[in-house]
Amino acid sequence: MAARAIYAPLVCTAALLLAVVVLPSAGLSLDTVREFLTREEDTIVFSLIERARYPLNRPAYDPIHLGDGAGPGRRLNASFAELFIRESEAVQSKAGRYQNLQEIPFFAYRVPFTLAPPYNFTSELYPAAAFVNVNDAIWSMYFNELLPLLAKNGDDRNYAVTVDSDLACLQVLSRRINYGRYVAEVKFRGDQQTYTSLIQAKDRDALMKLLTSEAQEDVVKRRVEKKATVFGQSITSDGPIETGVNNSSGTNFKVDPSVVYKLYDQWVIPLTKQVEVEYLLHRLD
Amino acid sequence: MAARAIYAPLVCTAALLLAVVVLPSAGLSLDTVREFLTREEDTIVFSLIERARYPLNRPAYDPIHLGDGAGPGRRLNASFAELFIRESEAVQSKAGRYQNLQEIPFFAYRVPFTLAPPYNFTSELYPAAAFVNVNDAIWSMYFNELLPLLAKNGDDRNYAVTVDSDLACLQVLSRRINYGRYVAEVKFRGDQQTYTSLIQAKDRDALMKLLTSEAQEDVVKRRVEKKATVFGQSITSDGPIETGVNNSSGTNFKVDPSVVYKLYDQWVIPLTKQVEVEYLLHRLD
Repeated sequence: MAARAIYAPLVCTAALLLAVVVLPSAGLSLDTVREFLTREEDTIVFSLIERARYPLNRPAYDPIHLGDGAGPGRRLNASFAELFIRESEAVQSKAGRYQNLQEIPFFAYRVPFTLAPPYNFTSELYPAAAFVNVNDAIWSMYFNELLPLLAKNGDDRNYAVTVDSDLACLQVLSRRINYGRYVAEVKFRGDQQTYTSLIQAKDRDALMKLLTSEAQEDVVKRRVEKKATVFGQSITSDGPIETGVNNSSGTNFKVDPSVVYKLYDQWVIPLTKQVEVEYLLHRLD
Repeated sequence: MAARAIYAPLVCTAALLLAVVVLPSAGLSLDTVREFLTREEDTIVFSLIERARYPLNRPAYDPIHLGDGAGPGRRLNASFAELFIRESEAVQSKAGRYQNLQEIPFFAYRVPFTLAPPYNFTSELYPAAAFVNVNDAIWSMYFNELLPLLAKNGDDRNYAVTVDSDLACLQVLSRRINYGRYVAEVKFRGDQQTYTSLIQAKDRDALMKLLTSEAQEDVVKRRVEKKATVFGQSITSDGPIETGVNNSSGTNFKVDPSVVYKLYDQWVIPLTKQVEVEYLLHRLD
């Protein structure tokens, strides 16, 4: 990740400046937030299933392996994955993807926004807190923790297709986890008095406790595990739909449902709450 | 599509030249081909469900709407979608995606292949017939016929995310349909005598008849429709899994299952067979 410092965050800054002039609107509610998060679960499970089609393809993630003496990988000490994601995000930045604050790039770009006219998306976020994100933690979690659980060992040299599917996983995980900003905004608006006093006291622990509902988190974790069993099963045209209830090893599924449970339990939910707390700590800036 | 002629197919030609020195291997079988095609169905259904998250976003496909006087859209008479897909494919070409002959770009690129060392993928295809593809027909079918059935009317200005999901659909449809080359290769090897005489007679109709199994096609069409009901349902953490059997209108699913049936019935299966026939007609070149 050393190479990430090479690009100055000019485009990001410009997007935030645009957002500053737009006040949070009243279109956000606990229902719309929950609906968004629930729908993202499907996209996350689909993206994990797709990544699991390919073997681990470890050389794509190794800065030394694919770089030659004059190539960009060796010069920047960057892996193939990093170079590919940086160039793909640059195209998406040109196309305006990051004008919408729901989307946050892993790298910042100097690329001019040229493929379509600029558009001021209505931001539901409090401008001074909208920058909060945990993309660095997501990047590290994805490549170091999740990917080895998803992909079987092996190398089929299909690095471009493989890393393209990594990018799809990263993008939806980033959007889902950093959506904690919207969750926090809705919760803040729902009980401004309580949150204001905790924010003014900078009481992280109390904020975290207020944002935590173990019962609700348990529902989410069981639901994503079930989605992995349903979406990752093999469907035949006549047989009954397998529910996977009797299969605890996960071997019949394209992605082990317990890995998806773990993803939410250990990373998605804790990181989302970390985003919520950080956002709230800037909510009165 | 007028702008597609701007780029000369240099990279494609280079990829084919590489392939020419590699003889078809014996790794291909009817079983591996069927397994690949069945697995692609899941990816196709996932990609359609993902595109259906976004409204139609018609201006992204209109060459006039988003181009300004000096912008690339107006100058090239290209739509935002075309520019975005061309630039995204160029990055993937740099990354070596099209070294693997299973993948065929919609546009041809002069982009040097620089992100990873070149690799000679083993080709299962007969070199002189490997170029066969129907990407132009897939492009036209996708944007003119399928997309209006998938996406609800509306415009949320999220053009980059929307067209990125179009590209995912296009890529898997292209890989699936142009896999007809592999299907034809396996069938040819299984009955060289019969195929050779029909190929020498250039008898398209007889080839098409020989390649057609209505019973098998019916199984595939019913299976993809079922996959759309299973993968496109709403999953709750406790409720029973809905099979969608009692819902013929498709309104409860993220993508109408009858649209996926129609996609296979009217386009995927006929276009695949067109690829098979064209491949076979070059199989003795």
